[in-house]
Amino acid sequence: MAAAASPLAPAKPTTAPLPARIGRLKALMAKHDCDAIISFKPENSFYLTGFNPIIYSQPVIAIIAPGHEPIMLVHALRDEHSRGSSWLSDIRLFGYWSSKVTLGANWLDALATVLGDLGCSAKRIGIEENFVSIDRMKQLRQALPGAQFTDAGRIIERCRLIKDSDEIGNARIAAKLSDIGMDAAYEALRAGGNEREICVSAMHAMNLHWSVNYPEVEVCDFGSLEGGVQNNLSFWALSGERTFYNCDNPSQRTPKRGDAVTLLSWTIANGIHAENERTVAVGPLPSAYRKAMDDILEIRAEVDVLIKPGVPFSDIYNASKSGLESRRYGAYLPGRIGHSIGLGAHEQFSIDAKSNEVLEPNMLITFEPHIQIYGEIQTQISDTILITAQGREYLTLSHPGYLEV
Amino acid sequence: MAAAASPLAPAKPTTAPLPARIGRLKALMAKHDCDAIISFKPENSFYLTGFNPIIYSQPVIAIIAPGHEPIMLVHALRDEHSRGSSWLSDIRLFGYWSSKVTLGANWLDALATVLGDLGCSAKRIGIEENFVSIDRMKQLRQALPGAQFTDAGRIIERCRLIKDSDEIGNARIAAKLSDIGMDAAYEALRAGGNEREICVSAMHAMNLHWSVNYPEVEVCDFGSLEGGVQNNLSFWALSGERTFYNCDNPSQRTPKRGDAVTLLSWTIANGIHAENERTVAVGPLPSAYRKAMDDILEIRAEVDVLIKPGVPFSDIYNASKSGLESRRYGAYLPGRIGHSIGLGAHEQFSIDAKSNEVLEPNMLITFEPHIQIYGEIQTQISDTILITAQGREYLTLSHPGYLEV
Repeated sequence: MAAAASPLAPAKPTTAPLPARIGRLKALMAKHDCDAIISFKPENSFYLTGFNPIIYSQPVIAIIAPGHEPIMLVHALRDEHSRGSSWLSDIRLFGYWSSKVTLGANWLDALATVLGDLGCSAKRIGIEENFVSIDRMKQLRQALPGAQFTDAGRIIERCRLIKDSDEIGNARIAAKLSDIGMDAAYEALRAGGNEREICVSAMHAMNLHWSVNYPEVEVCDFGSLEGGVQNNLSFWALSGERTFYNCDNPSQRTPKRGDAVTLLSWTIANGIHAENERTVAVGPLPSAYRKAMDDILEIRAEVDVLIKPGVPFSDIYNASKSGLESRRYGAYLPGRIGHSIGLGAHEQFSIDAKSNEVLEPNMLITFEPHIQIYGEIQTQISDTILITAQGREYLTLSHPGYLEV
Repeated sequence: MAAAASPLAPAKPTTAPLPARIGRLKALMAKHDCDAIISFKPENSFYLTGFNPIIYSQPVIAIIAPGHEPIMLVHALRDEHSRGSSWLSDIRLFGYWSSKVTLGANWLDALATVLGDLGCSAKRIGIEENFVSIDRMKQLRQALPGAQFTDAGRIIERCRLIKDSDEIGNARIAAKLSDIGMDAAYEALRAGGNEREICVSAMHAMNLHWSVNYPEVEVCDFGSLEGGVQNNLSFWALSGERTFYNCDNPSQRTPKRGDAVTLLSWTIANGIHAENERTVAVGPLPSAYRKAMDDILEIRAEVDVLIKPGVPFSDIYNASKSGLESRRYGAYLPGRIGHSIGLGAHEQFSIDAKSNEVLEPNMLITFEPHIQIYGEIQTQISDTILITAQGREYLTLSHPGYLEV
């Protein structure tokens, strides 16, 4: 038996409407002949339950079955926290902890019990084949010998590509926080700060703004079996030759006159990410570098008008590629020029030549064609963009043109 | 062909000694009849290469084969960064990016080529069965039809249980940073801050100290397929009834007189974590709560003397359990009272009744017996402890006794 709800977190009223995604996912399940889904991947189980335990030493399992509201299975240690966070009312426990009464000593026994109760033990069960480990799959086969397993990872990822209204609201907040970080970074760069000083200023500015202004927003990210991420209002800065690292923890290097500096603000609000990246000149850049900055800004303006519903992702890539080739950067093409973003900072869908996806309203993407000539030129500008009914809305609003400090 | 090393990061001299763990792992491989290891799990590939790309949209693969120095396979986008970070000299590339010349368009083709070069394509290859996904396993079986696969996850985790000297040095730094965060949190709590203000102060104090004092230390953590963690000098605070959440993003709740507040500082230095947790009283606690605080401190002191080489993990658990039972907390026993810590904040090995492990020098553990009576009492005190030749050394040094502000 599941323990009674704690007085801390009374059971949610069962009349609360579920987010639109649950309906969309059930329609996709029917289409793909999938009787039930058991979701283990942190981004996905949060998507389907609203609960992020931050640390995933034990799995959070979302169970979606037709004719039943979603069920969440969590470790007893997370009882109070899950009831306080999730929009589900059916939360069940496993594990051994203090005085908690649970469905079984481990998640596997508890899961087999729940699927048995649902009449799904011998049905076609969807699992995330791009996440579930070989070990866990062996355990599932042993505990559910009658079940057939099928991939549900791609169904859930396709579902995530279109954002619900709560997710769009959170994307706006994440983008606003990223703009605040970027402004603080500009200031720290102007004041002569080194890479670390720039980042520490930016993170602190974002945290102060979040702390006061968004009582209902969490800024934790999704952890793993081995750890947790309490705060992912993150920032990094790479200057001079270090820009070619693309991503690195900031160093004590102080940008010098003639350097380009890439400033990268990656934020989160209630699970939804934003990405805001800028390349800033410290005094005038060498002429070929300055030319590349002007070129990439022109290419962005040319391609921008294509970003609207009905346009294939591959058209956005190819238009960027043509813009680069016509300006003689054909030997330095990037593999992709953006990606879907949301519960992942890098979601599954790339904006590249091979993509079969087409832009739709309520998609959230990054747009980031780069010119990268190793040892010479690195332009790194990225915005988070919401696809609207008519076109697009830039959620990140930091200075969009050439900036020299 | 792998691209030539960039001028940014010349190849490391091949005479640099490898960390002791590579030799330990090769000995374990021989014992477990494993001809080669291909490691994908971020904590493990970092352990075996020294490279953390922060974002893992593409895998970093460590390849360990007898008679050959370790090889790292990375995406072309990470060429400069990996050469600047890793202590390996044999780094090979895959993917399609700018002018980079690589072994193949994707990691799978490149990996098959490398294993072919090593003569390992039809050998017994170790993979992390607790991490490698079903999808990835299918790809590996297709690309390496002659190989036999065996589990290497447990071998690597056993190897990680004993820390090398570089890891112990980093644990000391992570613990020092966690103490600085805890001190700043005490101050913010005394000053009347809410949960978020306490955490933002603590994170900022840790970041300022890190930024200035540790030029060679990175504070990023290990990302996933969907995201990255640039900075994990993290802190959380739970006050009053929220202490029963165990872990949650901080709220705007201001601790009030008579509350207990749990303060949790989780830090990292070059991949190695420290954990420092304290329960602080805001004014006098109710008498049963105060009694429980005194009891848990007594239990800690009793069990502390057992923490030394040669003692089974289960003895540490059972001594904690006896201490709780003899003080009438037998109905509220925790499932474990600590765990190994290192590249994971929660590593694999629990200090619980079922453990078969025995304490050895250079193990790094947390020690955290708790009294948790839901809705009434929550004592949460944890230290990071290094097992030494003679006994133990507490690396976290924040105020160890009863603290009232």
